[in-house]
Amino acid sequence: MRAARYYGKTDVRIEEIDEPTVTPGTVKIAPAFNGICGSDLHLYHDGPMAPGPTDSEPHPISGETLPVVFGHEFSGVVEEVGEGVTGIAVGDHVAVEPLMVCGVCHACKAGKYNLCEKMGFIGISGLGGGLSEHIVVEARWVHQVGAMPLDQAALIEPLAVSLHAVRHAGADSAKGEFAVVGGAGPIGLLTAAVLRAYGLKTIVSEVSPERRAKAKDTGVADIVVDPSAENLADVVREATGGAMAAFAFDAAGVSVVLDQLFASLGADGRLEVIALHQKPYELNVTGQLTMQDRVLGSAIGYANAHPEAIRLVNEGLVDLAPFITSKITVDNIVKDGYEKLLNDRSEVKILVSMS
Amino acid sequence: MRAARYYGKTDVRIEEIDEPTVTPGTVKIAPAFNGICGSDLHLYHDGPMAPGPTDSEPHPISGETLPVVFGHEFSGVVEEVGEGVTGIAVGDHVAVEPLMVCGVCHACKAGKYNLCEKMGFIGISGLGGGLSEHIVVEARWVHQVGAMPLDQAALIEPLAVSLHAVRHAGADSAKGEFAVVGGAGPIGLLTAAVLRAYGLKTIVSEVSPERRAKAKDTGVADIVVDPSAENLADVVREATGGAMAAFAFDAAGVSVVLDQLFASLGADGRLEVIALHQKPYELNVTGQLTMQDRVLGSAIGYANAHPEAIRLVNEGLVDLAPFITSKITVDNIVKDGYEKLLNDRSEVKILVSMS
Repeated sequence: MRAARYYGKTDVRIEEIDEPTVTPGTVKIAPAFNGICGSDLHLYHDGPMAPGPTDSEPHPISGETLPVVFGHEFSGVVEEVGEGVTGIAVGDHVAVEPLMVCGVCHACKAGKYNLCEKMGFIGISGLGGGLSEHIVVEARWVHQVGAMPLDQAALIEPLAVSLHAVRHAGADSAKGEFAVVGGAGPIGLLTAAVLRAYGLKTIVSEVSPERRAKAKDTGVADIVVDPSAENLADVVREATGGAMAAFAFDAAGVSVVLDQLFASLGADGRLEVIALHQKPYELNVTGQLTMQDRVLGSAIGYANAHPEAIRLVNEGLVDLAPFITSKITVDNIVKDGYEKLLNDRSEVKILVSMS
Repeated sequence: MRAARYYGKTDVRIEEIDEPTVTPGTVKIAPAFNGICGSDLHLYHDGPMAPGPTDSEPHPISGETLPVVFGHEFSGVVEEVGEGVTGIAVGDHVAVEPLMVCGVCHACKAGKYNLCEKMGFIGISGLGGGLSEHIVVEARWVHQVGAMPLDQAALIEPLAVSLHAVRHAGADSAKGEFAVVGGAGPIGLLTAAVLRAYGLKTIVSEVSPERRAKAKDTGVADIVVDPSAENLADVVREATGGAMAAFAFDAAGVSVVLDQLFASLGADGRLEVIALHQKPYELNVTGQLTMQDRVLGSAIGYANAHPEAIRLVNEGLVDLAPFITSKITVDNIVKDGYEKLLNDRSEVKILVSMS
């Protein structure tokens, strides 16, 4: 079968590889659409990163070294169901939760499998990937999406990332409160969408005019702010009648955005970081947290979030369609995918199919 | 009547002042014991600090400039009850929640009165203080302590600080979990006591041998650690069977302790800061928070905490007696109080009475 395999920095090859076969407890899926994620871009442009693997260092769970099949944000159609798998049928439309976990570490045993000591991703760390004609996945990672279109189903994975962060912050039960989102890339936009689904009012801060337009046009932002032209805290003060925001989400990963979000947060407020930070943040513990009973949290990935992410879409609380900005085939993945996403701020999610 | 008044840096004078009179909605109290707090030490040795007042700048709620009557951690006996006050009787033993709040700001209206924009303290910001023969206080701040000895009742105020932090961290419903406390000064010890009262297992880290001994002898620490001789994280790893702590409390206020506490915290763990930090902390957001779904919180003072603090003591869940290390009279407050606390690490709480 055909598959796109990642060999390392700027090296993705479309090759013929063996088709995987179903074993007990697994499901064989024909992938439909793959979203290109920030991690894919980083791997493509900068080379392998933790949790691996590399050419010489296998991932501790998959046991594989490079090359690996690429693609971890994907949807597909069930082709075959392994022995002992119940509740999933051939022809079902599914989204895959693309994880590999050890199952025996303290985090796994506590149900916090996103914090597994050896955590890896299907489509990054081995065990196949969505950029192939077929993949076999453990049944636990296969989530039925009902009648959801398969292109939207490819966005369930990043939506689950946003949902996990919103839950970690406790914002899923904060209907009517104000939340500020710093950064309107794919995760910032999806986070705003989740917050709106739970009834919060959203203020999205973003320097790129294209991304601000997307936040406004999709309706995920009640208010958009250009923090290079306006003072975000002043906008929040006016919108909230002086109370400031109950929640702030950093989807940018830079210190200056954390500064702006802290300045926009009210008493007893919660700031949640969704982005990765390359540099340490100089935190004024007393001024930014203590004197306001505030909390700074951050979470990674998702655990037990896919069913709720699917529900939000299927019940019409989140509309994923406007975030799909391009559809391409795998043959053009470098030029129309990895390179375009670096340069075109109007792109949100580019979906890749095998043909 | 006699009262100890704070005039500024190293200047506390015992003077004759007018006795206050009861008005509708207030209660007149004869103070029994005053604890000396870190704030008192700071005010005495270093001079006025926020929220004031100073010689020239009145506190926005009390309207008073210096001098002010000193003493905010105090117990007493009700002498007279103002018109309209119900449920409090002459002769009742009480602890005072020594606050002054505006009642109209966003925080006050949300019930988070410890975050009042203009917040002040009785005994620091005006409206009298516990270091006097009589004080008149709004009834809302007067809490009956039942049969609790009046010396212990003077410690309800710092106990409420610890309780507020434990609640803010969500540790009050975490029976059976491990909590690490960094620093065994009065607030660190009382925090460990509250954690034990809620059924957590406590590991107290402290460099001073006298304070470690106090943590061990009072039973508030299941394990004590000298972080200058042992690796705290290793001790926590062994005690928890590798899971690391669910909670950590910083009662030290220095960056190196935050480093040690983060290293001792498990997946999905909560670090709560109770101490004030003079310097910013260089936070590795991704490594210390994100990759472990962790939360860093901090809170100040207390709101709606006194009744529960009193319950913990009256039901025998917290024993305050061993934290009272000296009792002195106000005439010796400088030498046997403010100076002794700076030099003698075996002191926890020194109580001051007027005679």
